[in-house]
Amino acid sequence: MWHDRRVLDLFGIEHPILVSPMGGAMDWEMTVAVAEGGGLGSLPCIMFKPDRIREEVGKIRARTDKPFNLGFFAYKPEPPDNAREASWRDRLKPYYDEFGLDPNSFAPPPARAPFNEEFCALIEELKPAVVSFHFGLPDTPLLTRVKAAGCIVISSATTADEARWLDARGVDAIIAQGAEAGGHRGVFLSEDISTQAGTLALVPQVVDAVKVPVIAAGGIADGRGIAAAFALGAAGVQIGTAYLHSPESKISTPHRQALAEAKDNSTVLTNIMSGRPARGIVNRLIREQGPVAEVPPFPNAANALAPLRAAAEKAGSGEFSALWSGQAAALGRAVPAAELTRQLAADALARLKTLSA
Amino acid sequence: MWHDRRVLDLFGIEHPILVSPMGGAMDWEMTVAVAEGGGLGSLPCIMFKPDRIREEVGKIRARTDKPFNLGFFAYKPEPPDNAREASWRDRLKPYYDEFGLDPNSFAPPPARAPFNEEFCALIEELKPAVVSFHFGLPDTPLLTRVKAAGCIVISSATTADEARWLDARGVDAIIAQGAEAGGHRGVFLSEDISTQAGTLALVPQVVDAVKVPVIAAGGIADGRGIAAAFALGAAGVQIGTAYLHSPESKISTPHRQALAEAKDNSTVLTNIMSGRPARGIVNRLIREQGPVAEVPPFPNAANALAPLRAAAEKAGSGEFSALWSGQAAALGRAVPAAELTRQLAADALARLKTLSA
Repeated sequence: MWHDRRVLDLFGIEHPILVSPMGGAMDWEMTVAVAEGGGLGSLPCIMFKPDRIREEVGKIRARTDKPFNLGFFAYKPEPPDNAREASWRDRLKPYYDEFGLDPNSFAPPPARAPFNEEFCALIEELKPAVVSFHFGLPDTPLLTRVKAAGCIVISSATTADEARWLDARGVDAIIAQGAEAGGHRGVFLSEDISTQAGTLALVPQVVDAVKVPVIAAGGIADGRGIAAAFALGAAGVQIGTAYLHSPESKISTPHRQALAEAKDNSTVLTNIMSGRPARGIVNRLIREQGPVAEVPPFPNAANALAPLRAAAEKAGSGEFSALWSGQAAALGRAVPAAELTRQLAADALARLKTLSA
Repeated sequence: MWHDRRVLDLFGIEHPILVSPMGGAMDWEMTVAVAEGGGLGSLPCIMFKPDRIREEVGKIRARTDKPFNLGFFAYKPEPPDNAREASWRDRLKPYYDEFGLDPNSFAPPPARAPFNEEFCALIEELKPAVVSFHFGLPDTPLLTRVKAAGCIVISSATTADEARWLDARGVDAIIAQGAEAGGHRGVFLSEDISTQAGTLALVPQVVDAVKVPVIAAGGIADGRGIAAAFALGAAGVQIGTAYLHSPESKISTPHRQALAEAKDNSTVLTNIMSGRPARGIVNRLIREQGPVAEVPPFPNAANALAPLRAAAEKAGSGEFSALWSGQAAALGRAVPAAELTRQLAADALARLKTLSA
């Protein structure tokens, strides 16, 4: 039995495991699988327009009556920067030439719209059990409406200061996102990622700083990691990378291969894939142009990469893709997501029992 | 009771806690206090000449019959680089002017000699229970002599690859040094610190990679961290920063103050203090010249800093000192080291018991 039931009771779930909403890597299938497995299923909404979200939620509700989370970004868009855009395209031109692509071609970039009036109205219509935000929280009027719709609100903190900020604004739980985590750092109070703490150091400092339950994220991929998170004072875990191995994940074949071959030191924090720092597996683009460079502001750095990514992936290569991964990909295995959820919970409980025997 | 007794049995200690040998921050007093507290006491030997080590060991043995560890560096010295030395001194000249120091003055730099024939002969004479190395291992002839003297040999790994390398060379236990750890990264197979994993991700991957017991290090500063390390599969922990708060530590007053005020995001990995990457609290020198720059090879970057550090510390400032610290300094308290050792062990056991209740 789980000693700390705060996260279980808050969400009304059986196992204290949330799947990270990973934009571009999953849809309703993952949400349903994790929810049916007893965890909190998530649907990443950042790549979808409202109609598509409505459709996905319909598919989820046709298959499960379990609670689930809709995940959004809450950043303030920066104005386009034509100079940076031009210099980024200049740097990428040799690759366009290599692939025989027109450097003036414009693939439709993936949408990564921040939470806005339109999304808020959709939340009021769909009333999901949980809404999660990354990069802070939306402005108070929108946040108030989400809460008034009856949704549980959670967000990520990468420092104890960010956790205190979220706690003061009335979130129901805080994800402490340690530096091991794959994908975008949820930073919003400081852009300085060089000083951010690993999960083992961060979680107890966040627990000591806030009133609400803390959900540990970053480097957790098996029962040992979950048991460790609870030892640190977390009441739940959010897991991303481990679910990317599962058949429900919608990642590209090169991404799946890279994850299968990843080691503890295969990833790096880079901003060149999107304009914001995120952890991914080192590939040719990162080696040659990054990991950190002056690129167009988030999410526009991805625009000029889109044709390169598509051409490379068509040729079976992930050398121009964002191969998001945390530092514990090597601990994961290709198991269906519902089964993985149940197995992770069982392994964690068994591990905790062993430790105090 | 500790479920996994491998580290306890290997060293013959009561609590599975090692104090990191922190050169310049401690002497026999800390060694004795931790040993008498039931952990493994360590004496950092890198700042001491053989006569001083002999004297320190005499003081330890006059006060305790518990086992203890002598800690050494095992790096291969690089040849001096006059161009880098000159350009580093040029960069520092404005600070020399500010403090009214002669830029050609030469304070005797702290010794940081690698393990050599002379140290090896001393080990054969003193026969400590344990010898620890940082930055890999000494060459086989010296390593063979240390083992023949009956010493248990341990070393640090920052990646699973380094752990496998150490395991293949016959160490008795491996310290998995996560990215949260304060002081020098124990790197020896790769200098790329941007890809190194946090403790929570690293420990289980090292555990899976080697035969010998694994000791977790990095970000562990209270009973929760120790319990988490055991959850991850470690059979012991090595703790540094938490002991720096204790009255037995010999750090400067500014360093002690900086540790007392540190938050989860106060530290950074920097190479400018010594020439090798190490984690310390951000100060003026790091803000203005680092954290990472082209400086003279280890340990010579410290030479030109020595007069600045001395002048600043005399004025009560740590702005030019190496304020080594891990990412969990905020979890520590100023408790005598023997008491701290006992309290950490008791807290960890209580935490583990709670978790499975």
